[in-house]
Amino acid sequence: MPWSPFRKLTPFADAAKRRGVIVHHLNIGQPDIETPPSVLAAVQQADIRVLEYSPSAGHDSYRRKLAGYYQGVGIDVVAEDILVTAGGSEAILFALLSCLNPGDEVLVPEPFYGAYPSFAVAAGVHIVPITSHIEQGYALPPIAEMERLLTPRTKAILICNPNNPTGYVYSRAELEQLRDLCLRRQLFLLSDEAYREFCYDAPYVSALHLAGLEQHVVLLDTISKRYSACGARIGALVTRNKAVQEAALKFAQMRVSPPGLAQLLGEAATALPATYFDGTKAEYLHRRNVLVARLQAMPGVTCPVPSGAFYVMVRLPVDDTARFAQWLLEAFQHEGQTLMISPAAGFYATPGLGRQEARLAYVRNADELHKAMDCLERALGQYPGRTA
Amino acid sequence: MPWSPFRKLTPFADAAKRRGVIVHHLNIGQPDIETPPSVLAAVQQADIRVLEYSPSAGHDSYRRKLAGYYQGVGIDVVAEDILVTAGGSEAILFALLSCLNPGDEVLVPEPFYGAYPSFAVAAGVHIVPITSHIEQGYALPPIAEMERLLTPRTKAILICNPNNPTGYVYSRAELEQLRDLCLRRQLFLLSDEAYREFCYDAPYVSALHLAGLEQHVVLLDTISKRYSACGARIGALVTRNKAVQEAALKFAQMRVSPPGLAQLLGEAATALPATYFDGTKAEYLHRRNVLVARLQAMPGVTCPVPSGAFYVMVRLPVDDTARFAQWLLEAFQHEGQTLMISPAAGFYATPGLGRQEARLAYVRNADELHKAMDCLERALGQYPGRTA
Repeated sequence: MPWSPFRKLTPFADAAKRRGVIVHHLNIGQPDIETPPSVLAAVQQADIRVLEYSPSAGHDSYRRKLAGYYQGVGIDVVAEDILVTAGGSEAILFALLSCLNPGDEVLVPEPFYGAYPSFAVAAGVHIVPITSHIEQGYALPPIAEMERLLTPRTKAILICNPNNPTGYVYSRAELEQLRDLCLRRQLFLLSDEAYREFCYDAPYVSALHLAGLEQHVVLLDTISKRYSACGARIGALVTRNKAVQEAALKFAQMRVSPPGLAQLLGEAATALPATYFDGTKAEYLHRRNVLVARLQAMPGVTCPVPSGAFYVMVRLPVDDTARFAQWLLEAFQHEGQTLMISPAAGFYATPGLGRQEARLAYVRNADELHKAMDCLERALGQYPGRTA
Repeated sequence: MPWSPFRKLTPFADAAKRRGVIVHHLNIGQPDIETPPSVLAAVQQADIRVLEYSPSAGHDSYRRKLAGYYQGVGIDVVAEDILVTAGGSEAILFALLSCLNPGDEVLVPEPFYGAYPSFAVAAGVHIVPITSHIEQGYALPPIAEMERLLTPRTKAILICNPNNPTGYVYSRAELEQLRDLCLRRQLFLLSDEAYREFCYDAPYVSALHLAGLEQHVVLLDTISKRYSACGARIGALVTRNKAVQEAALKFAQMRVSPPGLAQLLGEAATALPATYFDGTKAEYLHRRNVLVARLQAMPGVTCPVPSGAFYVMVRLPVDDTARFAQWLLEAFQHEGQTLMISPAAGFYATPGLGRQEARLAYVRNADELHKAMDCLERALGQYPGRTA
């Protein structure tokens, strides 16, 4: 079982803080956006005498309202297609356990969400990576290349759309190519859509929008990013495939219930107006534009414009972003400040890849992003391992 | 992956209710005891602006206070020995994943908690059952018999103490025999102590009270039963073995955080005075005495006195408790009422065992228990499959 790839840097960040240095955390996907007060109030004003187990699939009332939410974004599902999970994390684990047998393979475009390899170990399955490239803005790799990596043990393709860590949003054309591949080779398409609401330049297309693929798609979802409620740990596994839903329900019964208090929060969130997202989306878009503009103005830095989520992947003119990230915390400061970044090697399964790349999250406000970019600009000028 | 063994009966219970029959649910471990209002208030009055991820091991403040709780029950651990989990369920899964490799074996006295086989499938390990018998009140099977079942692949023994489903509380002598076996054969002792507070006839002995076994013990715990907060989904994996704690932390990092709101509840619960349990324990003891007295007065029924938890296992004079349980819901009523029981076959891994046994939970008040026993008494007189 691997360690979280980003764990190594934490002690250095803690040490920097102990020295009085302000650390701008661009390394994590924890937004500073307020959790909607009306949604928190639903939990805080609930009349609870006994905090009982909920049904294993989640409260019926919540599942019905969630179905309404999905219908609102053009995803044609009913309550019975939805299993409420402990965060998107549990949805990922249950999907791998339900769609694959031990020893089976799942094809995943890299760079990918850093925890996928751990889920694969826990589920006893293997990740086969297919590399996407910064030169193409991390677009979907050519389908022919993907197909060449399929073996008789490949049971699924796992995508994250909008993508963490790249911010790339798959186009309808790319998704349709994926659909055709999944139909041709009888594969599940596991689609992690945690960032659905955050598409800035093009309409969002869900895997469940793809006609003909309904029986192959398993959506992995969470309210964490949507409502800035990461700590709630409420997600969902959504599929119209009855056999998969049934298998997932067995795993859900194993752990009896998803979190109870947080389900109240999730249920209340379904009552937010669609306009709720206008504000958060505008804020993230502004931050993205600030961050990308600053990064693209730095000599030697490559920064494709990400169309969604709240991350940018950059290539930096340094020998190794893991070493650079540590140096930022250990040896650098500018006006008492520094920043923490995520070295990208942890997002790749292929050894050696990502050593010049890093992920920056724009989960802090534009002022703080400017300060962090002031630090990065100066740091790149001073770093002894600068390459270009 | 197996279905929950008790799922089959639910449609029959629903149908009975639709016919207007009152169903006394003695089949589930969901207490009717109030969740302490001060504990709920801690969540409901918390000042939360952003519901953020907590640390993967749980909030530091909660872990510190939990360590205080454990010290209060004579378990010598510090915050670093504690990993906060999504219910006892996640603690069971993480313990199996952390202590065993895929294909390894864990020895478990049967009858056992009905979800253990599902956790074993999810973790890719095998349960080897060792039968305990109603004639001995479900005491620990002889150690020599247990030792005969050990193979080179056996890595752990899993006990539940006080036991679900039998209510048996292991004596210090039995636990010391287990300790000696674990030391002699280098096994982990995974000890599920969800019902620690509910020991009625003898002092509670934790696996972590056993001198010399500290490095072998992993406690699996939950606040569900302790504070009647089953829906919170907060538990803990507690071990002084650093390597196990480290492995479990990797799985914890995979799912980022345990539930956030419920951690506030768990933390508040640590402030309850030790006397809090006096009331609930007295209530459960009263219920146990009512239920056991009624059962022992029924001809042909065998009912050992359980010393802990809130379950009794009985042997009924029927052909098959699964068939009887269904008949109770489908074909029987007494004054518009019936009861739902858990057929014991689902608690055994050995095929054919438990067909005359059933588990009854005393999670309802004495009045309701009396009504349920009135039903059972008459039902045993009318059931066509009565044997003795």
